[in-house]
Amino acid sequence: MKAIIGVDLGGTNIVVGAVAEDGNGLYGLSTQRTPAAGGPDAVVELMVKMTRECMEETRKMLGPDIEFIGVGIGAPGPLDRNRGIVLIAPNLGWRDMPLRDRISEAVGLPASLDNDANCAILGEWWRGAAQGAKVVVGLTIGTGVGGGIVIDGKLFHGASDIAGEIGHTTVDLNGRRCKCGNYGCVEAYASGAAIAARAVEGLEAGASSKLPEYVNGDLSAIDAQLVYRAARDGDEFAREVVRDTARFLGATVANMVNTLNPDVVVVCGGVTLAGDQLFVPLREEVRRRAFKPAVAACRIVAGALTGTAGVYGAAATFKAWYCDGKE
Amino acid sequence: MKAIIGVDLGGTNIVVGAVAEDGNGLYGLSTQRTPAAGGPDAVVELMVKMTRECMEETRKMLGPDIEFIGVGIGAPGPLDRNRGIVLIAPNLGWRDMPLRDRISEAVGLPASLDNDANCAILGEWWRGAAQGAKVVVGLTIGTGVGGGIVIDGKLFHGASDIAGEIGHTTVDLNGRRCKCGNYGCVEAYASGAAIAARAVEGLEAGASSKLPEYVNGDLSAIDAQLVYRAARDGDEFAREVVRDTARFLGATVANMVNTLNPDVVVVCGGVTLAGDQLFVPLREEVRRRAFKPAVAACRIVAGALTGTAGVYGAAATFKAWYCDGKE
Repeated sequence: MKAIIGVDLGGTNIVVGAVAEDGNGLYGLSTQRTPAAGGPDAVVELMVKMTRECMEETRKMLGPDIEFIGVGIGAPGPLDRNRGIVLIAPNLGWRDMPLRDRISEAVGLPASLDNDANCAILGEWWRGAAQGAKVVVGLTIGTGVGGGIVIDGKLFHGASDIAGEIGHTTVDLNGRRCKCGNYGCVEAYASGAAIAARAVEGLEAGASSKLPEYVNGDLSAIDAQLVYRAARDGDEFAREVVRDTARFLGATVANMVNTLNPDVVVVCGGVTLAGDQLFVPLREEVRRRAFKPAVAACRIVAGALTGTAGVYGAAATFKAWYCDGKE
Repeated sequence: MKAIIGVDLGGTNIVVGAVAEDGNGLYGLSTQRTPAAGGPDAVVELMVKMTRECMEETRKMLGPDIEFIGVGIGAPGPLDRNRGIVLIAPNLGWRDMPLRDRISEAVGLPASLDNDANCAILGEWWRGAAQGAKVVVGLTIGTGVGGGIVIDGKLFHGASDIAGEIGHTTVDLNGRRCKCGNYGCVEAYASGAAIAARAVEGLEAGASSKLPEYVNGDLSAIDAQLVYRAARDGDEFAREVVRDTARFLGATVANMVNTLNPDVVVVCGGVTLAGDQLFVPLREEVRRRAFKPAVAACRIVAGALTGTAGVYGAAATFKAWYCDGKE
């Protein structure tokens, strides 16, 4: 049996697992905090260590005949896929980091590099909620909002590997300033950080809510997960924050539906914990805004591979890059 | 020599020409008003008549050896390419019109059908301002705002032939209502009709401008062309209207740059008559909003095939559909 190691490098966690070449099996999965403060060397060292341990663990489970054909790496930031270099990763403080070759040399296997959000969406197409779709538009909602586009089973990278930055598309021309420098990006409203910030702003402006009780009055402890929990618990203000999030996300998804006419839109990340509180108004907003026949052709679903989409997808990008002709 | 007849059906005009199979030549070009009020039969009859005259004219010029291999038709509205049917064309009052087969049977040649804006953008890729580009995003600005996406020389149609409706993407969530039912579409600001409406609104609100002098005080006679002319003549208010148009278009183009990372964005239609008045602030707005490396990879240009992009592109869609495997 052949397997590919998928390595999903995030600003918060590193997740590593061995994926069977046909996608039917995930072995030796492990998660560790990203030692970002230790600089690039500490991060690379841990990625290599986790990769070796994953291979060992997988061999123990499946026997010594297992053959590892390579390592697929998903990493944040604009990157140069051909050269295997992370150009800029603000959360890690990296610039021009030759991540692919450092991992490849240390592990003794060929490796590939792609964007982390791209990997997650390709993972959802390969083994998750978007299986069988012809055109997939995906959003990954965490600290920021990432995106990815899969067409006929292949990631769409654009002219210079930057395609899919859907989190930084404008839905309100004169809106909130985003960290990217633009105004009114959906990320400025619907990222985990933005959801928490909007909740705190509302509370400080006097909104009636049980949210402060969850954090003993310390509003700085409110995060997006807590907003979803309060919404599930029936808190009206928390529900309003989630509904507003659905509105901004809905305008963005409607833009993608009219532009790319996908058959599946997959929304990944912690925000999906809000469940119907999010998805019911999200689908309604898309119906309100996008062309009817395009809406009719499109399912809007939550990601199915919680925590592992990036590992599956990183392995899939290696497979596409290495086995199918390094495209 | 082989040639394809390109037929560009618009709400206002029908344009027909014979395009050499290799794109190196356009013959027997003619334009007529669309007899929309006469119903589908009058329109089809005129399209057939123009096609026959074009073939005759081309034979006269190039000799009897010319072989016509088919007819490519560009038409407005959502359509079913496989069945060759225009589903809805509000400006023509059509529903479920089997346009492709009616033309094909009357002319005695195979025919194909695609969206008119798609055809114009493919035409610009084939023979116009976007030649050689890997990823093209195009906008056609006339009465409405159409769009098209070309990837690796092929139109991108999405899951159900609706991809490319960029004119109906939201840039202002709470903005002007658009004819499509959505709020804040770029078409509601940057179409010819919207440009004229915004100018008239400004004048009625007391803006100082020479625009009324051009129309002897009859504001209802102001159209977008006149606004561009006044802007070129130095009228400050007209320039402001064009700058605002650039701002809305710029946010839309920036969204496309971040989403699709094109190497060329091509803007077609009457609005390009505004020249630098439009393109200088448009490029600036895109630079302000989109990711630097994506902006660096992208040229934003005016269409080069004024009045004929749709004919070239309709012929190219026939070629792709018929000669390259009916995809």
